[in-house]
Amino acid sequence: MTWSTVADPPAPGPGEVTLEVVATAVNRADLLQRQGFYPPPPGASEIIGMECSGRVAVLGAGVDRVEVGAEVCALLSGGGYASRVNVPVGQVLPVPAGVDLITAAALPEVACTVYSTVFGIAGLRDREVFLVHGGASGIGTFALQAVRALRPNALVATTAGTAAKLARVRELGAHIAVSYRDDDFVARIREATDGHGADVILDNMGAAYLARNVAVLAVGGRLVVIGLQGGVKGELNLGALLTKRAAVHAASLRGRPVEEKADIVTGVRGDFWPAIEAGAIRPVIDRVLSITEVARAHQHVADFGHVGKVVLTIPE
Amino acid sequence: MTWSTVADPPAPGPGEVTLEVVATAVNRADLLQRQGFYPPPPGASEIIGMECSGRVAVLGAGVDRVEVGAEVCALLSGGGYASRVNVPVGQVLPVPAGVDLITAAALPEVACTVYSTVFGIAGLRDREVFLVHGGASGIGTFALQAVRALRPNALVATTAGTAAKLARVRELGAHIAVSYRDDDFVARIREATDGHGADVILDNMGAAYLARNVAVLAVGGRLVVIGLQGGVKGELNLGALLTKRAAVHAASLRGRPVEEKADIVTGVRGDFWPAIEAGAIRPVIDRVLSITEVARAHQHVADFGHVGKVVLTIPE
Repeated sequence: MTWSTVADPPAPGPGEVTLEVVATAVNRADLLQRQGFYPPPPGASEIIGMECSGRVAVLGAGVDRVEVGAEVCALLSGGGYASRVNVPVGQVLPVPAGVDLITAAALPEVACTVYSTVFGIAGLRDREVFLVHGGASGIGTFALQAVRALRPNALVATTAGTAAKLARVRELGAHIAVSYRDDDFVARIREATDGHGADVILDNMGAAYLARNVAVLAVGGRLVVIGLQGGVKGELNLGALLTKRAAVHAASLRGRPVEEKADIVTGVRGDFWPAIEAGAIRPVIDRVLSITEVARAHQHVADFGHVGKVVLTIPE
Repeated sequence: MTWSTVADPPAPGPGEVTLEVVATAVNRADLLQRQGFYPPPPGASEIIGMECSGRVAVLGAGVDRVEVGAEVCALLSGGGYASRVNVPVGQVLPVPAGVDLITAAALPEVACTVYSTVFGIAGLRDREVFLVHGGASGIGTFALQAVRALRPNALVATTAGTAAKLARVRELGAHIAVSYRDDDFVARIREATDGHGADVILDNMGAAYLARNVAVLAVGGRLVVIGLQGGVKGELNLGALLTKRAAVHAASLRGRPVEEKADIVTGVRGDFWPAIEAGAIRPVIDRVLSITEVARAHQHVADFGHVGKVVLTIPE
């Protein structure tokens, strides 16, 4: 990856805006796209980058919800690793009060993913048991806090790989933090819930955790798979799923229609932004690097060296 | 199985009624329970039989929604193959106008199963593509008609095993009827839907059809597994599920809490009973036998010789 000069994006289409990008952030999907495993959806930019913060530079036809110069962040289907990007205005969010413009680049993907899965697809209710794998990841650090903030009586469990990460996820609100290296999350969560198990699981491991996730699901439980870091194909015990009247969902944000993304963004703004502005959800930033150091940033994420998000600033 | 004299059930508990059973019906789960594979849930009768029709004989404390002597049918957690059975009043339904009392015994299980899965869990919308496997079964014959009646613009597909059954499911409203012996339902349904696939699948085959069901699911599709006739454990392609943002649900009615069953029964009465009374959904009865011929009835269902439900009458 090299930072080089390319043509500006075209003028924004109807309902779109052009943003001057101030910062973007690294998502694991970016690493897959770099390796050729995650091609952008039809019509999306070929440039990597699924979120950014910046300033509104140009308004497309019919856009009246934002003004030129406004400081915003946005959920992108691509193109964030650049100085300028076009995005449907429904995917643009204000920078929450109390969050600086660079940090705001780390919010759209995790907020929209957690909102649309944990609160949308899985419909987590208060007093339920929530498990998120990889609690120290960008998604994990946000999900732990969001569930504590919006479902104050939920019991929150997570997995992490090192003692430092386990300590960090406990600080972020996890009631139960299990080492996936040294311990058995199925046994620990069953113990901690008197055998009840997890009502909602947000999973990034796919096949490698499928059997264990189904085993630890509660009656009526919902497993939402959003990543396949542990493989694509796994054995599903439909008998266990039937006994539990449970479900396995798989979800991704990037390919969803523009209207669905706009609905998610509206929900995020209504439910998560106030919690961020109240300090109940704090963006967790591992480090901020220049986009010119993107190779190092990707390697750091590939090595699981981070806690929270890695942000990349774009030179003016 | 022999028909013999046992003690009457105890007096009905609070919120329960005792029914004098006029007829019951065979469910595939009855065959499993007979073989020891499907024990009744805690507190349920040890006697087989998950639905019945009959007359209200005794009211438990607090019951004021039905009168002694009323002709009703009921969803049971067991005990239907008997002269008398106790049931929570929330699981009791009136006999629909135009349906005779014996035929009504065949309605509660299929109606509550189809309502809670296709319309509840999967939330089938109008203009979606619906696939039910085993279209000539009790569930299948009801599901085909219910979807045609309540979602008039849905496209309805089904599978069946013989030419006679394929003709029958077409009469019942299937737009697409595929022989599971001679043909490939994935290819046929893709062809018939311009590649779209099935938005909702109601499946009784479990592992044997898991890969093909996931393959034929549309983007945003919901597979609901309610039977495991083709095995318990199957390989799940989470990559395909993720690309489609789809879900695999497993559902069963019997173990659900009494309150949930009452909600389902209320929905069935509100949405399905009017369609039955209007003739848009007709109970499909394969044959009516005496409970003294129950062994023959079970063998007939085990041999897949039936279309629709096998009803068993109870001698007075």
